[in-house]
Amino acid sequence: MLYIYHMSITEKYDNVFKALASPIRRQILDDLRDQPLMTGVLCEHFPELSRYAVMQHLSVLEEADLVIVERKGRERWNYLNPLPIHQIHERWIGPHAKRAVALLDRLKVDIEG
Amino acid sequence: MLYIYHMSITEKYDNVFKALASPIRRQILDDLRDQPLMTGVLCEHFPELSRYAVMQHLSVLEEADLVIVERKGRERWNYLNPLPIHQIHERWIGPHAKRAVALLDRLKVDIEG
Repeated sequence: MLYIYHMSITEKYDNVFKALASPIRRQILDDLRDQPLMTGVLCEHFPELSRYAVMQHLSVLEEADLVIVERKGRERWNYLNPLPIHQIHERWIGPHAKRAVALLDRLKVDIEG
Repeated sequence: MLYIYHMSITEKYDNVFKALASPIRRQILDDLRDQPLMTGVLCEHFPELSRYAVMQHLSVLEEADLVIVERKGRERWNYLNPLPIHQIHERWIGPHAKRAVALLDRLKVDIEG
Protein backbone atom coordinates (compact mmCIF):
# COMPACT_ATOMS: atom_id res chain seq x y z
CA MET A 1 0.00 0.00 0.00
CA LEU A 2 1.19 3.47 -0.83
CA TYR A 3 0.89 6.37 1.55
CA ILE A 4 1.39 9.83 0.16
CA TYR A 5 1.87 12.56 2.71
CA HIS A 6 1.59 16.06 1.36
CA MET A 7 3.53 18.55 3.39
CA SER A 8 2.39 22.13 3.09
CA ILE A 9 4.87 24.70 1.79
CA THR A 10 4.97 26.18 5.30
CA GLU A 11 5.88 22.84 6.85
CA LYS A 12 8.59 22.34 4.22
CA TYR A 13 10.16 25.70 5.03
CA ASP A 14 9.84 25.01 8.78
CA ASN A 15 11.77 21.76 8.32
CA VAL A 16 14.45 23.40 6.19
CA PHE A 17 15.15 26.22 8.65
CA LYS A 18 15.01 24.01 11.71
CA ALA A 19 17.50 21.70 10.02
CA LEU A 20 19.78 24.62 9.17
CA ALA A 21 19.63 26.07 12.68
CA SER A 22 22.23 23.52 13.86
CA PRO A 23 25.94 24.30 13.32
CA ILE A 24 26.75 20.58 13.01
CA ARG A 25 24.15 20.09 10.31
CA ARG A 26 25.46 23.14 8.45
CA GLN A 27 28.94 21.61 8.64
CA ILE A 28 27.63 18.33 7.22
CA LEU A 29 26.22 20.29 4.26
CA ASP A 30 29.60 22.03 3.85
CA ASP A 31 31.25 18.60 3.65
CA LEU A 32 28.74 17.43 1.05
CA ARG A 33 28.94 20.57 -1.07
CA ASP A 34 31.68 19.35 -3.37
CA GLN A 35 31.02 15.61 -3.41
CA PRO A 36 28.62 13.00 -2.04
CA LEU A 37 29.97 11.04 0.93
CA MET A 38 29.29 7.68 2.50
CA THR A 39 27.82 7.87 5.98
CA GLY A 40 30.92 6.16 7.45
CA VAL A 41 33.22 8.81 5.97
CA LEU A 42 31.00 11.62 7.24
CA CYS A 43 31.11 10.11 10.74
CA GLU A 44 34.92 10.27 10.63
CA HIS A 45 34.65 14.04 10.05
CA PHE A 46 32.95 14.36 13.45
CA PRO A 47 35.08 12.35 15.87
CA GLU A 48 33.49 14.17 18.84
CA LEU A 49 30.08 12.71 17.93
CA SER A 50 28.80 9.16 18.07
CA ARG A 51 27.80 7.45 14.84
CA TYR A 52 24.25 7.49 16.15
CA ALA A 53 24.31 11.28 16.64
CA VAL A 54 25.63 11.88 13.12
CA MET A 55 22.93 9.61 11.70
CA GLN A 56 20.27 11.54 13.63
CA HIS A 57 21.53 14.79 12.12
CA LEU A 58 21.51 13.19 8.67
CA SER A 59 17.94 12.07 9.10
CA VAL A 60 16.86 15.62 10.02
CA LEU A 61 18.60 16.85 6.86
CA GLU A 62 16.98 14.11 4.79
CA GLU A 63 13.53 14.97 6.16
CA ALA A 64 14.11 18.60 5.18
CA ASP A 65 15.10 17.41 1.70
CA LEU A 66 18.50 19.07 2.10
CA VAL A 67 20.24 15.71 1.81
CA ILE A 68 19.29 12.94 -0.59
CA VAL A 69 20.32 9.41 0.35
CA GLU A 70 21.15 6.74 -2.17
CA ARG A 71 21.62 3.17 -0.99
CA LYS A 72 24.03 1.00 -2.98
CA GLY A 73 24.13 -2.45 -1.40
CA ARG A 74 25.36 -1.85 2.13
CA GLU A 75 26.66 1.61 1.30
CA ARG A 76 24.70 4.72 2.10
CA TRP A 77 25.66 7.72 -0.03
CA ASN A 78 24.63 11.22 1.05
CA TYR A 79 24.16 13.99 -1.52
CA LEU A 80 23.56 17.67 -0.92
CA ASN A 81 20.28 18.72 -2.55
CA PRO A 82 20.73 22.36 -3.53
CA LEU A 83 17.08 22.91 -4.51
CA PRO A 84 15.66 24.02 -1.13
CA ILE A 85 18.47 26.56 -0.78
CA HIS A 86 17.89 27.76 -4.30
CA GLN A 87 14.19 28.20 -3.50
CA ILE A 88 14.99 30.31 -0.43
CA HIS A 89 17.04 32.57 -2.67
CA GLU A 90 14.27 32.78 -5.28
CA ARG A 91 11.67 33.59 -2.64
CA TRP A 92 13.33 36.71 -1.28
CA ILE A 93 15.79 37.76 -3.92
CA GLY A 94 14.47 36.44 -7.22
CA PRO A 95 15.99 36.90 -10.63
CA HIS A 96 15.59 40.70 -10.75
CA ALA A 97 17.72 41.49 -7.70
CA LYS A 98 20.49 38.95 -8.29
CA ARG A 99 22.98 41.28 -9.93
CA ALA A 100 22.47 44.06 -7.42
CA VAL A 101 22.98 41.69 -4.50
CA ALA A 102 26.12 40.14 -5.95
CA LEU A 103 27.53 43.64 -6.42
CA LEU A 104 26.63 44.67 -2.85
CA ASP A 105 28.25 41.52 -1.53
CA ARG A 106 31.47 42.22 -3.42
CA LEU A 107 31.51 45.80 -2.13
CA LYS A 108 31.06 44.54 1.42
CA VAL A 109 33.98 42.13 1.06
CA ASP A 110 36.12 44.94 -0.41
CA ILE A 111 35.25 47.34 2.40
CA GLU A 112 35.74 44.82 5.19
CA GLY A 113 38.95 43.64 3.57
CA MET B 1 30.98 54.87 25.39
CA LEU B 2 31.02 52.50 22.45
CA TYR B 3 30.61 48.78 22.83
CA ILE B 4 31.43 46.61 19.87
CA TYR B 5 30.20 43.06 20.06
CA HIS B 6 31.64 40.71 17.51
CA MET B 7 29.35 37.83 16.69
CA SER B 8 31.01 34.72 15.34
CA ILE B 9 29.97 33.50 11.90
CA THR B 10 28.31 30.53 13.60
CA GLU B 11 26.24 32.78 15.84
CA LYS B 12 25.24 34.88 12.83
CA TYR B 13 23.98 31.83 10.95
CA ASP B 14 22.22 30.56 14.10
CA ASN B 15 20.34 33.87 14.35
CA VAL B 16 19.43 33.88 10.67
CA PHE B 17 17.99 30.36 10.69
CA LYS B 18 16.19 30.76 13.99
CA ALA B 19 14.64 33.94 12.63
CA LEU B 20 13.58 32.18 9.42
CA ALA B 21 12.10 29.19 11.29
CA SER B 22 8.92 31.19 12.02
CA PRO B 23 6.19 31.33 9.35
CA ILE B 24 5.12 34.81 10.53
CA ARG B 25 8.64 36.17 10.17
CA ARG B 26 8.93 34.63 6.70
CA GLN B 27 5.68 36.35 5.79
CA ILE B 28 7.04 39.68 7.05
CA LEU B 29 10.03 39.22 4.73
CA ASP B 30 7.64 38.41 1.86
CA ASP B 31 5.86 41.71 2.52
CA LEU B 32 9.16 43.61 2.54
CA ARG B 33 10.53 41.95 -0.57
CA ASP B 34 9.23 44.52 -3.02
CA GLN B 35 9.26 47.66 -0.90
CA PRO B 36 10.19 48.91 2.56
CA LEU B 37 7.25 49.35 4.92
CA MET B 38 6.54 51.40 8.01
CA THR B 39 6.00 49.36 11.15
CA GLY B 40 2.38 50.56 11.42
CA VAL B 41 1.58 49.34 7.91
CA LEU B 42 3.21 45.97 8.59
CA CYS B 43 1.10 45.60 11.73
CA GLU B 44 -2.04 46.07 9.64
CA HIS B 45 -0.98 43.06 7.53
CA PHE B 46 -1.24 40.89 10.66
CA PRO B 47 -4.58 41.78 12.25
CA GLU B 48 -4.50 38.55 14.28
CA LEU B 49 -1.35 39.74 16.09
CA SER B 50 -0.86 42.55 18.56
CA ARG B 51 1.39 45.44 17.62
CA TYR B 52 3.74 44.24 20.36
CA ALA B 53 3.97 40.74 18.84
CA VAL B 54 4.76 42.12 15.38
CA MET B 55 7.44 44.35 16.87
CA GLN B 56 8.97 41.37 18.68
CA HIS B 57 9.15 39.48 15.37
CA LEU B 58 10.71 42.53 13.71
CA SER B 59 13.34 42.76 16.40
CA VAL B 60 14.29 39.08 15.89
CA LEU B 61 14.62 39.81 12.16
CA GLU B 62 16.67 42.94 12.87
CA GLU B 63 18.98 41.04 15.19
CA ALA B 64 19.53 38.45 12.46
CA ASP B 65 20.33 41.31 10.06
CA LEU B 66 17.49 40.19 7.79
CA VAL B 67 15.69 43.49 8.31
CA ILE B 68 17.33 46.90 8.44
CA VAL B 69 15.45 49.63 10.29
CA GLU B 70 15.69 53.27 9.38
CA ARG B 71 14.15 55.85 11.71
CA LYS B 72 12.86 59.06 10.11
CA GLY B 73 11.46 61.27 12.85
CA ARG B 74 8.68 59.24 14.43
CA GLU B 75 8.51 56.85 11.47
CA ARG B 76 10.18 53.49 11.53
CA TRP B 77 10.89 52.07 8.08
CA ASN B 78 11.72 48.38 7.68
CA TYR B 79 13.84 47.16 4.76
CA LEU B 80 14.57 43.59 3.72
CA ASN B 81 18.32 43.01 3.75
CA PRO B 82 18.98 40.39 1.06
CA LEU B 83 22.64 39.85 1.99
CA PRO B 84 22.26 37.05 4.58
CA ILE B 85 20.08 35.10 2.13
CA HIS B 86 22.57 35.69 -0.63
CA GLN B 87 25.34 34.37 1.61
CA ILE B 88 23.39 31.17 2.37
CA HIS B 89 23.14 30.62 -1.37
CA GLU B 90 26.84 31.29 -1.89
CA ARG B 91 27.82 28.95 0.93
CA TRP B 92 26.16 25.84 -0.46
CA ILE B 93 25.61 26.56 -4.11
CA GLY B 94 28.23 29.09 -5.14
CA PRO B 95 28.76 30.57 -8.57
CA HIS B 96 29.73 27.29 -10.28
CA ALA B 97 26.47 25.45 -9.58
CA LYS B 98 24.07 28.33 -10.21
CA ARG B 99 23.17 27.49 -13.79
CA ALA B 100 22.69 23.79 -13.10
CA VAL B 101 20.40 24.50 -10.15
CA ALA B 102 18.29 27.03 -12.04
CA LEU B 103 17.86 24.45 -14.80
CA LEU B 104 16.91 21.70 -12.33
CA ASP B 105 14.41 24.02 -10.71
CA ARG B 106 12.79 24.83 -14.05
CA LEU B 107 12.59 21.12 -14.89
CA LYS B 108 10.95 20.44 -11.54
CA VAL B 109 8.33 23.14 -12.14
CA ASP B 110 7.69 21.75 -15.65
CA ILE B 111 7.29 18.19 -14.39
CA GLU B 112 5.08 19.11 -11.45
CA GLY B 113 3.04 21.40 -13.72
